[in-house]
Amino acid sequence: MPPLEIAGRCERVRQRFEQSQALLVSDLNNIRWLTGFTGSNGWLLVFPDDVVLVTDGRYGDQATAQLAKAGVDGRVLVGRSSAAIFDTLAAEVAPLPSLGFEAAHLTYEQFQRFDGLFETTLVPVGGLVETERRRKDAGEIARIAEACRIADAALSEVQLLGRTEARVRDELEIRMRELGADGPSYETIVATGPINAARPHHRPTGTMIEAGHTVIIDVGALYDGYHSDMTRTFFALDATPQQLELYDVVLAAQCAGVAAVEAGISTAELDAVCRDVITEAGYGEWFSHGTGHGVGLLIHEDPFINRTGDLKLQVGDVVTVEPGVYREGFGGIRVEDLVVVTENGCRVLTASPKDSPCLPSPPMT
Amino acid sequence: MPPLEIAGRCERVRQRFEQSQALLVSDLNNIRWLTGFTGSNGWLLVFPDDVVLVTDGRYGDQATAQLAKAGVDGRVLVGRSSAAIFDTLAAEVAPLPSLGFEAAHLTYEQFQRFDGLFETTLVPVGGLVETERRRKDAGEIARIAEACRIADAALSEVQLLGRTEARVRDELEIRMRELGADGPSYETIVATGPINAARPHHRPTGTMIEAGHTVIIDVGALYDGYHSDMTRTFFALDATPQQLELYDVVLAAQCAGVAAVEAGISTAELDAVCRDVITEAGYGEWFSHGTGHGVGLLIHEDPFINRTGDLKLQVGDVVTVEPGVYREGFGGIRVEDLVVVTENGCRVLTASPKDSPCLPSPPMT
Repeated sequence: MPPLEIAGRCERVRQRFEQSQALLVSDLNNIRWLTGFTGSNGWLLVFPDDVVLVTDGRYGDQATAQLAKAGVDGRVLVGRSSAAIFDTLAAEVAPLPSLGFEAAHLTYEQFQRFDGLFETTLVPVGGLVETERRRKDAGEIARIAEACRIADAALSEVQLLGRTEARVRDELEIRMRELGADGPSYETIVATGPINAARPHHRPTGTMIEAGHTVIIDVGALYDGYHSDMTRTFFALDATPQQLELYDVVLAAQCAGVAAVEAGISTAELDAVCRDVITEAGYGEWFSHGTGHGVGLLIHEDPFINRTGDLKLQVGDVVTVEPGVYREGFGGIRVEDLVVVTENGCRVLTASPKDSPCLPSPPMT
Repeated sequence: MPPLEIAGRCERVRQRFEQSQALLVSDLNNIRWLTGFTGSNGWLLVFPDDVVLVTDGRYGDQATAQLAKAGVDGRVLVGRSSAAIFDTLAAEVAPLPSLGFEAAHLTYEQFQRFDGLFETTLVPVGGLVETERRRKDAGEIARIAEACRIADAALSEVQLLGRTEARVRDELEIRMRELGADGPSYETIVATGPINAARPHHRPTGTMIEAGHTVIIDVGALYDGYHSDMTRTFFALDATPQQLELYDVVLAAQCAGVAAVEAGISTAELDAVCRDVITEAGYGEWFSHGTGHGVGLLIHEDPFINRTGDLKLQVGDVVTVEPGVYREGFGGIRVEDLVVVTENGCRVLTASPKDSPCLPSPPMT
């Protein structure tokens, strides 16, 4: 598997702020992306010509090892208490006239504390690391692809008919771990029948998967920090004409969406590609959520693909395409793939079949 | 199981702010505690004589049902976009001269947005709901006790010797679900041997549990939103004299801590009770973390029990008592119970045995 290209990331972020300024990174996912550090407590200072990670006593050795492994040329400083950590940060930034901070992550309380402690002027900045994090490198794409492969394999093996939602969830999650996942990518959704499958974010229950149901399975794996995300819908035994019709509509919308993914398309345009197919078939009201979202160190990250999205897809974006329809009494249907935007469109990372949603009958006994 | 006493909680919080003021609650755990609402997006306004929950289109019906079930007499308003939600909040608070907000939860960006949108003066407040959340009611204690019971049962059934850390983790988590848990309370820790058990927050690996190891298992269940937390240490077959000596020290420290739990003791005093036993035995440097923390809707919440803690325990606090010692090359030992502070000291909610840490030899074949 190709290595993560961590060493150059601080420089990518530096290109986005004035050279005279530095950035205080407080979001732990951003810190992980910039340095390889995976501890649960840390602050990162990105200076024009230096990088400083400040953490507590639990993580000093780990941080030093992880930065070295990632090839990040920086210093690790340890504070034995919250106050010591803040004092260490204050001493480091004291020579600076101004310091950027992540306005979407620093709490008001943290801001007040820094503002009282630092002589330096604090400047709110928005989404600076997140913007760079969108462009996945080969190592990141390989990890996401491996997470997809694991979820594909687990889904291909699990039996659905005559089992409860919760049991199917458990078997998927166990199998993903056996196949090398660190765990599920998010709370696995198994939603069956006219009530549960009508809820896009249903939590698995003791409800049995029975003949006549549509069954939505939304499952992903976590692999070395990176997530996968995929949904398939199945029909338990004989599907009704309405179920089959709606499946065709959703699948057509989803395939149209995947076909439309390319660098330069706006997230609102991509949403419209899927939504228009469903609306033209008369089911627009049943499609009650956005078309997709970015996936990486977070299961939901930029770019979000919905009606009001104003970002343009770019090479290296990894996004879901997941239209769905839901109606209580009918149930629900969703089909979702994870794709990476390439120079020539996109590459689909999830491989579970989506052309034969009808579950096979159990063998006659 | 006794019901959660949700209906009176907003009034408990109101007693903590001026009657002329209202409070904007943004933390979802606090919103759940105050109203029963479990959605992933919402803002709560607690007025002197009214309660308003603002959420998005996914959660309108759910919120109405959950508030009604909890007996909370409030209004649910739905905004179809982030902008609509903010406008709705602005309209609701417009008549107020000032509005408290949760400084530890609102981000700087959210604060700036509200500050630009509202005529009302925003006043930072700290830990107001959290302070009330400490005092668990009978329904909350029953749910935490049930989560403890589930983890106890799972731990009693799992086989350790000759299995990998990851497999033990998987079996514990599956068994907890079968026993009624919604999932694990946190990432289950199974840490074996001289390297892994020396790391307090070790993540299970493919390392086999073998003769000579100390094995730390830190496991809890999630039940109806409430967490449990427990640690036991085992010796794989023959324990060394040093392992046995250190186990006795840690167990003595932990039992002294549990015996000292009562309303009125400060968190620093309780930490010292455990720490002194280990320090007097000559292993103070090996006890590298705090003695415990509160548990409830969060796995880690107030009151935190450590050297610098300045809170006093009170009736209704549910806290862990979990001293431990760690040294690379030796491994680690930790013993942890979850207790609820009562009028007469405390009641221990976890019941797994801690007096016979040596695993039985496998049957001769």
